[in-house]
Amino acid sequence: MRAHNLALVLNTVANSADPPSRAAVSAATGLTRATVSALVDDLIAGGLVTELDPPPRTGAGRPAAGLALTAAGPAGLGLEINVDYLAACVVDLTGAVRQRFTEHADQRPAGAAGALAALGRLGARARLAAEADGLVIAGVALAVPGLVSGDLVRVAPNLGWQNTDAAALLRGVPELADLPVAVDNEANLAALGELRVAGANPDFLYVSGEIGIGAGVVIDGELYRGVRGWSGEIGHVTVYPDGRPCRCGANGCLEQYAGQEALAADEPLAAAALGIALSAVVNLLDVPVIVLGGAFVPHFERLRDGIEAELRRRVLTAGLAPVTLRAASLGAEAAVRGAADAVIREVREDPAGWLRRTS
Amino acid sequence: MRAHNLALVLNTVANSADPPSRAAVSAATGLTRATVSALVDDLIAGGLVTELDPPPRTGAGRPAAGLALTAAGPAGLGLEINVDYLAACVVDLTGAVRQRFTEHADQRPAGAAGALAALGRLGARARLAAEADGLVIAGVALAVPGLVSGDLVRVAPNLGWQNTDAAALLRGVPELADLPVAVDNEANLAALGELRVAGANPDFLYVSGEIGIGAGVVIDGELYRGVRGWSGEIGHVTVYPDGRPCRCGANGCLEQYAGQEALAADEPLAAAALGIALSAVVNLLDVPVIVLGGAFVPHFERLRDGIEAELRRRVLTAGLAPVTLRAASLGAEAAVRGAADAVIREVREDPAGWLRRTS
Repeated sequence: MRAHNLALVLNTVANSADPPSRAAVSAATGLTRATVSALVDDLIAGGLVTELDPPPRTGAGRPAAGLALTAAGPAGLGLEINVDYLAACVVDLTGAVRQRFTEHADQRPAGAAGALAALGRLGARARLAAEADGLVIAGVALAVPGLVSGDLVRVAPNLGWQNTDAAALLRGVPELADLPVAVDNEANLAALGELRVAGANPDFLYVSGEIGIGAGVVIDGELYRGVRGWSGEIGHVTVYPDGRPCRCGANGCLEQYAGQEALAADEPLAAAALGIALSAVVNLLDVPVIVLGGAFVPHFERLRDGIEAELRRRVLTAGLAPVTLRAASLGAEAAVRGAADAVIREVREDPAGWLRRTS
Repeated sequence: MRAHNLALVLNTVANSADPPSRAAVSAATGLTRATVSALVDDLIAGGLVTELDPPPRTGAGRPAAGLALTAAGPAGLGLEINVDYLAACVVDLTGAVRQRFTEHADQRPAGAAGALAALGRLGARARLAAEADGLVIAGVALAVPGLVSGDLVRVAPNLGWQNTDAAALLRGVPELADLPVAVDNEANLAALGELRVAGANPDFLYVSGEIGIGAGVVIDGELYRGVRGWSGEIGHVTVYPDGRPCRCGANGCLEQYAGQEALAADEPLAAAALGIALSAVVNLLDVPVIVLGGAFVPHFERLRDGIEAELRRRVLTAGLAPVTLRAASLGAEAAVRGAADAVIREVREDPAGWLRRTS
């Protein structure tokens, strides 16, 4: 009950337009003032909430202090590995990005152990800088372009990884060894980043363009992960059945026509290929909005007409309700911000757990 | 509260392996014996539950009478229109099929009004036969091969219908004018029929083969309908981008290669086309089971190898977890049974509503 009420008070503070007083939190939650005060004291002691100075006195009575999430408490460390870059990002409890590091280099030659060690060192730099700023890293979320089961990357075709225990390899970096690590698909985390950070429509398909192409299916404000957690593999939807061979072993996969390398080479079939695959998604799932992210963002205006022409032609319901196509708000950093944000969301959903860890 | 408890008692009776006594219902629900007895009396008076004679006395004490759903109470009338047939089906409260009528004829020349009038007359015959058998029709559910919004069929490409008020046209048949009518997509109802009647796995894609091809996406035991209710249009997933023109205006849609007419003509591309489209579904949604229904059932063994070869080649996760492909349990009658069953489910979920209607 206390755990539930701590989360209730914390999220009431988080979601208020202006810093609320203890009395306002009591009114909003239905908890007594005494209960709210005790919970707020615990949240302040645990570094989750801060009490702002009251505004100058303008009339009768003593103005109440306002409560706000602290910008100097727990923070999330997001890490991302992709074929051609590494990224680290620290987000504080208020959702603000506090540190951001990126390294561009082909990650394939290093193998899983080498690449994750390099990513761990980048994460350690971000952690050090964040701690110098008064933050406490609550955990790590790792975004990978592949199929994930728990801590394990089952397959990451474009990295050439198979059955890689990514969490263990990351924790092998001494500066991160004490942190909990969660592993997730990069398109899933990017979709969550777009949903939460950018406040997207609650029903959309997020398509992440990297060397490979993945997608996150967001239905009614929730990520649809599939039965084994392997949904959204739009990069391997067939667009030309006898087309180019793909690293996955099939022919004519979308990512052979609209992956980052194809986009950079001004591949003439990219827009049509995207339009064909996206039409399949809309026909199957009836999603009203498609968000193109990652490497698609800088090419969006060039691709738009070609994609929309295919959607008009191939989506059965296009005449009844047009599909909205837009570029992602977060650009290339969606996955790493979504990862850092996922850590913060956990603290916000279970502040009691955080208080236990830090007491 | 009484409405909730009536449903609780009714479903406890429905889901018991053997006819339970009032005392057993009390034990299973946590309601007092007096409450259960009053509710059971109401359910018996409303024709929903019947009291079976106790088994012969075998020992000390008086054996208790057992409770069961009545086979002579409310029943659901399912109706289906498809391009080449009409069907009507009556299912009683126990789930048993009590009447079944089918008429084979091309429904396109008659237009929506003519076809629905003919279907209404078929439904009226089924109703008359069911009523002669002591049943009371609780409502009608209509299965149509098209995009449905409320009572309206927005588009049924293979029937040539647009913005057809199917419920109003059906109620125009005098013998059905007093019944509530619900309209739904035939693949959705067939998927629900397969889920409920055949007790299918809770996560599967049901693919309905008729002149056109539709699908029902069942996730965690629930039909996923999409934001506007237009999910599952697998028949219009592109398999050959520059392929045969489709009635919808696009080229290379699945139903041009694997619809009923193609199957009847031994179309050599049918299995490959199905495999390509089904691989897209599995890549996007991570569904572990695919059920082929309707016109696919008699062709299943012929199609199976070709479809499975494409699934192995094109599903990214095929090496981690093979996709299960099977023929539907209900065959051609899945949609009309699913429709009749949907009416019955409503009565079972809200017996208080039924008792109000009949008192």
